[in-house]
Amino acid sequence: MVTDKTSPFPKSARIYVPGSRPDVRVPMREIILAPSRRPDGTLTPNDPLRVYDTSGPWGDTSFHHDVELGLPAIRLPWVLERNDIEAVPGRELKPEDDGYLSWKHAETAQRATSRNRLVQFDRGNRQVYKGKPGQRPTQLAYAKQGIITPEMEYIAIRENQRVQAARQEQALPRHALGFQHPGQSFGAAIPEEITPEFVRSEVARGRAIIPANINHPELEPMIIGRNFLVKINTNIGNSAVASSIEEEVEKMRWSIKWGGDTLMDLSTGKNIHQTREWILRNCPVPVGTVPIYQALEKVNGRAEDLTWEVFRDTLIEQAEQGVDYFTIHAGVRLAYIPMTARRVTGIVSRGGSILAKWCLSHHKENFLYTHWDDICDIMAAYDVSFSIGDGLRPGSIADANDEAQFAELKTQGELTKRAWDRGVQVMNEGPGHVPMHMIKENMDKQLEWCHEAPFYTLGPLTTDIAPGYDHITSAIGAALIGWYGTAMLCYVTPKEHLGLPNKNDVREGVIAYKIAAHAADLAKGHPAAQRRDNALSKARFEFRWEDQFALALDPERAQEYHDETLPQDAAKTAHFCSMCGPNFCSMRISDDIRKFADAQGVSAEEAMQQGMAEKSKEFREQGGEIYQ
Amino acid sequence: MVTDKTSPFPKSARIYVPGSRPDVRVPMREIILAPSRRPDGTLTPNDPLRVYDTSGPWGDTSFHHDVELGLPAIRLPWVLERNDIEAVPGRELKPEDDGYLSWKHAETAQRATSRNRLVQFDRGNRQVYKGKPGQRPTQLAYAKQGIITPEMEYIAIRENQRVQAARQEQALPRHALGFQHPGQSFGAAIPEEITPEFVRSEVARGRAIIPANINHPELEPMIIGRNFLVKINTNIGNSAVASSIEEEVEKMRWSIKWGGDTLMDLSTGKNIHQTREWILRNCPVPVGTVPIYQALEKVNGRAEDLTWEVFRDTLIEQAEQGVDYFTIHAGVRLAYIPMTARRVTGIVSRGGSILAKWCLSHHKENFLYTHWDDICDIMAAYDVSFSIGDGLRPGSIADANDEAQFAELKTQGELTKRAWDRGVQVMNEGPGHVPMHMIKENMDKQLEWCHEAPFYTLGPLTTDIAPGYDHITSAIGAALIGWYGTAMLCYVTPKEHLGLPNKNDVREGVIAYKIAAHAADLAKGHPAAQRRDNALSKARFEFRWEDQFALALDPERAQEYHDETLPQDAAKTAHFCSMCGPNFCSMRISDDIRKFADAQGVSAEEAMQQGMAEKSKEFREQGGEIYQ
Repeated sequence: MVTDKTSPFPKSARIYVPGSRPDVRVPMREIILAPSRRPDGTLTPNDPLRVYDTSGPWGDTSFHHDVELGLPAIRLPWVLERNDIEAVPGRELKPEDDGYLSWKHAETAQRATSRNRLVQFDRGNRQVYKGKPGQRPTQLAYAKQGIITPEMEYIAIRENQRVQAARQEQALPRHALGFQHPGQSFGAAIPEEITPEFVRSEVARGRAIIPANINHPELEPMIIGRNFLVKINTNIGNSAVASSIEEEVEKMRWSIKWGGDTLMDLSTGKNIHQTREWILRNCPVPVGTVPIYQALEKVNGRAEDLTWEVFRDTLIEQAEQGVDYFTIHAGVRLAYIPMTARRVTGIVSRGGSILAKWCLSHHKENFLYTHWDDICDIMAAYDVSFSIGDGLRPGSIADANDEAQFAELKTQGELTKRAWDRGVQVMNEGPGHVPMHMIKENMDKQLEWCHEAPFYTLGPLTTDIAPGYDHITSAIGAALIGWYGTAMLCYVTPKEHLGLPNKNDVREGVIAYKIAAHAADLAKGHPAAQRRDNALSKARFEFRWEDQFALALDPERAQEYHDETLPQDAAKTAHFCSMCGPNFCSMRISDDIRKFADAQGVSAEEAMQQGMAEKSKEFREQGGEIYQ
Repeated sequence: MVTDKTSPFPKSARIYVPGSRPDVRVPMREIILAPSRRPDGTLTPNDPLRVYDTSGPWGDTSFHHDVELGLPAIRLPWVLERNDIEAVPGRELKPEDDGYLSWKHAETAQRATSRNRLVQFDRGNRQVYKGKPGQRPTQLAYAKQGIITPEMEYIAIRENQRVQAARQEQALPRHALGFQHPGQSFGAAIPEEITPEFVRSEVARGRAIIPANINHPELEPMIIGRNFLVKINTNIGNSAVASSIEEEVEKMRWSIKWGGDTLMDLSTGKNIHQTREWILRNCPVPVGTVPIYQALEKVNGRAEDLTWEVFRDTLIEQAEQGVDYFTIHAGVRLAYIPMTARRVTGIVSRGGSILAKWCLSHHKENFLYTHWDDICDIMAAYDVSFSIGDGLRPGSIADANDEAQFAELKTQGELTKRAWDRGVQVMNEGPGHVPMHMIKENMDKQLEWCHEAPFYTLGPLTTDIAPGYDHITSAIGAALIGWYGTAMLCYVTPKEHLGLPNKNDVREGVIAYKIAAHAADLAKGHPAAQRRDNALSKARFEFRWEDQFALALDPERAQEYHDETLPQDAAKTAHFCSMCGPNFCSMRISDDIRKFADAQGVSAEEAMQQGMAEKSKEFREQGGEIYQ
């Protein structure tokens, strides 16, 4: 089945930047810009602008666009040539993986549900791999051994906006090259040039992770760490009430189109395994899951019936499929649970609640905590990264930064160290609902207690009073904590607290978070991040409307809004807009000032100093107008 | 013409809190809450929650709702009894006030345009007032004399959430009463109780203003200052390209419904005077304008033809109508204009551009600067407040915090002092486009250079790359600068940079800014602000869906989103939601934990300490489920 080709963004081309070997080809979107029109009518070309592109092959019009064929396995040669993994038969698929009692039950149920027609992903001979006995084929282990992997080189090219920006910046006024005031940096130290060696050193130090399961060869490598661009995660997932496999795959393609850097599949209910298979085989960005959700399905939703064996089997099932990172709520320790009893909103994390219920029912320590080393060994064998869950995160402003939350954070730090010792990459999940003035404490404690492992936060939401707009309440907190050093921001959609997001909600959530992440990149003093702002503002000032749309995070929305009041094609080259009308435009008057200065053949400052009386007379005699 | 009655928000009643005299009656919205259901089935009532209400008589279903009659003149007795104003014949209306060459031209033009049928606001004997010779009937002058006006008492009642909150807070868990960590306050010092005397002292000190023209008796007094709730301003205004009078009046009612605290009428083109008349006579919140826009219309859009006389006449025209604050770009001094020539986006303020063009054309100092004292004397006679414009604000990230911007800010400070000396209330306008790490410098310099006069900023936008979503890029900056001490935030709609906002854009912009302002109130350590968050979160945790909607900033949107996946009425009392389905709900499990602790008759902490093995067995035997 060939889906509709993703419509490429306007004025944009997919290009590939080559690396040191022919199979390292890093995709980017190149935005073609119109020339600037000088006052004397001559045209000055504007260099095209390259931007980070998360859309994978789906953003390349020459790709087959067939979800049944899946994406090319670009990383397969890389994982194989390291000689530390082996083909394994893999775990046998069980009916309960998809929530059925038996194969017969599965067949009957699926026949009855025509909307789930894509149930079996057929990829014939897909081979499952696993680290050879005693081997830990993780990016962390390689980095510690001083090995620069193709993944690391790929990432260096992808992140290296600064070098790629150099040529563009020459064309801009000197003033725009950087900030006039040194950025107040909260611990980020982004180098002048991102080299493969820098990528390696940050991974070795545990300050960054490359989520990249050896069984997800379709992945285009990316990095999560505070000395790199701030990333955003999007969530999809069916639930017992709504959604189908096809919808979930489509949401994945939609979220990476708008800029989602990673994707969590939070499905519950039926067909979890098959939904995930479809997503993984078609997804160019890292996929994360919360394995306890599926484990709970296998014990019919009874938290107290969960066992290490069921959980372990689920981990292997998902690791073999190619999931790149697992959220594991091992920090929800028995002793912390009562700390939540007097909260306004108790425990709001699904994973946290499940484990809390298990702990209370058995009056035993969390089995994820007690089996931590076993979990590490499984994950190391496939290079699945940890996203250590924050099951006791605050669900309201009133509960922010409380004892329960910080007790768990300390344990996340302990678990981080233990995972590193076993070669597993780690990031830590963070809140939640936190008012602005209490956000920095979260970042400070996480850096200290979790030894600078990347922080990955949900927002945080800075107020509870705006259901329907929580992409905004949380984008405020996300921008702030991203500035302070959070490496990845988990998006929130307008439906948060109210229902499941549809396609438009996903788009709204992704763009709100692209804004937060970019605002954080600017605030961290990443001057290369500013080149897109500069290019867009220059286009805006010069009334290059089409360029302004193309440079926008959401070109379609920008054009649609513009066209609502001025739909004619001519308006897109007009030197005015609907806000002020043709005779009353501040940008136009301002351009006048610049042209005036230019026309004098001296800088405007000099003109002022020399005394401008005569020149001002000339200016008025010439009509004092532009576009005469 | 009786308009549709504003649909009152759900579960809400309009109440009036009485003051010390019968004509001080402060409107509030009281949200009625359902009782909490305890685990044993008993019900505990929840006190209703009172919230600040900006909707004026339009939010009172017993009001006549006739825009042709206008609002009651509640302040008229107050301004008259002070005995310092006198009735004046008022300036004669001229055809050019509405952009016509002659009365005949006006008549012909209006007959041709059926959409503008509400052209003449007929209020028969509306009397124009002015300060008696030598008198300055301003709130600042009264405050300095130690007089507490009815306006100040009204404001104290309106702002005094803390005292009103006391009863509600008793019902919440102790933990929720305030922040566990002291807020990092950036110079706000909000007292335990807002007294009329505190209002007076802040106004006397120049730290707060009460925009309240003696000719706008329909006004419900409000205050702008950093030791009060953060306010938001909304803009409306036709332009040559779009919009009609009726649409503008409707937008005004719409923006105050959602919570706009003040309103700027930025109309240009035809019918400016009449549009403003309709708005003022129907508007319960302060109305601001930029008089230079209308003055420019009177000289046919030619900035260089502007004169002090035309401008002066426009000031008097608008002051007599009842405009409460004027944006005056007197800080755009001749010497600063060349500082903008090498900017990426030059001058983006309309007012700034007009003055810059005038200055350059004449090579003379800005006539608003040279006539500052004259302007002060006119404004003092009607108690029009200054909003000293920032005509050189940055229009892009690249131009933030530059020489031009800060040169003007220093001049704003100088003008502030001079206005205070002549008894005129002042706030200062601020940017604009500023990356997060450069925002605080704006606040710090404004406090220092402008002597703590209230700061009133447009956003700021924290990135340039998201046209179509600038309500979000700017809500991030607005929340931040509000936390730092900005008193009022000028809203930005999704159409910013692209077109004129329609009704839905106004709603999106207002809510985004209510979020930013509320997030700032929380971060400033205003514990009373948190009671709405606490009430909503408590309702959310207890699955009181209807209460959650009613407590939301936008109840209609919250309910609409909820109903998209679960439209049935039953779902609004259901103890689950569509995110997780009926058998998999973290809130539900968490409630379990609390009930478990309650059921033991000891606190959960004690239970844990005593060792819970036995109790955990009981819990499992009882089924470990709620709602058995």
